[in-house]
Amino acid sequence: MNEFELIDEIVATLGAAASGPLVRVGPGDDAAVTRVPPGMELISSIDALVGDVHFPAAAGPALIGYRAIMVSVSDLAAMGAEQGFVLVALNLPTDDPAWVRELTVGMREAAETLGVGLVGGNIARGPLAIAVSVHGFAPAGQALLRSGARPGDRIYVTGELGGAAAALARGGLADCRAADQLDPLARRYFRPRARLPEGIALRGRAHSAIDLSDGLLQDLGHILKASRVGARLDAAAIPVAEGATLEQALHGGDDYELCFTLAGALPPLGVPVYCIGEIVAESGLTINGKPVVTSGYQHFG
Amino acid sequence: MNEFELIDEIVATLGAAASGPLVRVGPGDDAAVTRVPPGMELISSIDALVGDVHFPAAAGPALIGYRAIMVSVSDLAAMGAEQGFVLVALNLPTDDPAWVRELTVGMREAAETLGVGLVGGNIARGPLAIAVSVHGFAPAGQALLRSGARPGDRIYVTGELGGAAAALARGGLADCRAADQLDPLARRYFRPRARLPEGIALRGRAHSAIDLSDGLLQDLGHILKASRVGARLDAAAIPVAEGATLEQALHGGDDYELCFTLAGALPPLGVPVYCIGEIVAESGLTINGKPVVTSGYQHFG
Repeated sequence: MNEFELIDEIVATLGAAASGPLVRVGPGDDAAVTRVPPGMELISSIDALVGDVHFPAAAGPALIGYRAIMVSVSDLAAMGAEQGFVLVALNLPTDDPAWVRELTVGMREAAETLGVGLVGGNIARGPLAIAVSVHGFAPAGQALLRSGARPGDRIYVTGELGGAAAALARGGLADCRAADQLDPLARRYFRPRARLPEGIALRGRAHSAIDLSDGLLQDLGHILKASRVGARLDAAAIPVAEGATLEQALHGGDDYELCFTLAGALPPLGVPVYCIGEIVAESGLTINGKPVVTSGYQHFG
Repeated sequence: MNEFELIDEIVATLGAAASGPLVRVGPGDDAAVTRVPPGMELISSIDALVGDVHFPAAAGPALIGYRAIMVSVSDLAAMGAEQGFVLVALNLPTDDPAWVRELTVGMREAAETLGVGLVGGNIARGPLAIAVSVHGFAPAGQALLRSGARPGDRIYVTGELGGAAAALARGGLADCRAADQLDPLARRYFRPRARLPEGIALRGRAHSAIDLSDGLLQDLGHILKASRVGARLDAAAIPVAEGATLEQALHGGDDYELCFTLAGALPPLGVPVYCIGEIVAESGLTINGKPVVTSGYQHFG
């Protein structure tokens, strides 16, 4: 099967997931053509996931594909963006149409779940890697940034933390094949849900937001740095996922929950939300009054 | 140097190339925020370049960075799009800040030359690969597609073909360090120029267009397939780059010139343009009356 036959099959597998009301030209031309709703700004990010660095390459390809879309779109959620479309660049070491078909099935499920169109892509020979660029919309000036946290804001997170780190620490993820066979910890790793509705509900309310990809302390640290503020956390308030430790909840990555700050009443989000501390004027981060260094997953250094 | 220090340095090196009049939030948040001009559709594509597959990894990093941006933006040119912005996902095997700085200098030069903002990116540990998503604009309904070629259209290409293939066949590209030391053939490979102004000038005139990344015959074949037409080419009319052969001009990739079809008068493009044949109703491609199979660079199969 040559490159173009493989692309034709991917597009056939995607079906309606390759289009949408805002898509005029989907996969198959030099580029996709989409419409941007009036009054909206465009929100755009790119992520790359490398085989056996960011995911176990031997795991079921549908699990890999689903997770690749979800973790990439999570950046849109952190901005309070409405979902638009994604582009996928796939580097493959071998010609394995069955593997690519299963990967596409997983991507399609995530795209359909989120309501994003998978409107274009690229296939190249190379060590296994998946780059996903994600594109959404927010009313002009309303995107949630990292830089708006203010002293007195309360700090919140959605959901429970540390589950994906606990799954990684336990091991065995490379043996996982299909979503319906995952135990709860493995689901935390393979089946995150990009918090798009929650991010949208926070527009005009939250002063700052970020998604938790590298660990709570490190990601909150980005908000503190961008906003030039500090934070006080209450260890007992950190929501630790069942099967995880407080350490994993503080430092573990891959949960893709939202962390945000706001003053005043919390809008209804429809998911568990926990207040874990507050923003203070003095720089630095303390937990139960003790200074901590923000750290988490770093690719280098 | 950790991941975040490296990103800070990349952003500092980019300087004004990370922003632009349509950019409200550039690198440093979860996503970039940009404005889309009124009445414009969004044109988006993604490319991936793998070290020692799509470029010699040992070549000068500024050459690699410049070329990565140019070849990716070439897809916008093929659509007749106006330049907008790009996102770059960089997978790096080692922590080499000097290499990344030079790569960024090359990317900055290409971005400034084209007038695109490099508004976001991602850095990950992994085998060397560069994914670039590119985004531009075209007035609603005016993007150039592959599917509009009609019998009677003349087929044109910009520039001369085969030079990049001749440079690859000659070898030695891995030893190239800097743009000012390249001989003409090596320039054909490392210093393509995305044909953005030419694509824009062809809007409303050309019936179809594609950029020549995989070879004239293969890329023209995509137009023929999408438009359900055939083509007759005149071998003597194919513009062969100095130092290249007709075979390289027909089958060699990496030239990033435009191939387009139109009826009637050719608009002034400001670069050499050659009429190489015409579109016919009968399917298939002939050169001097002899049927040929479209082929070129395929990543698989």
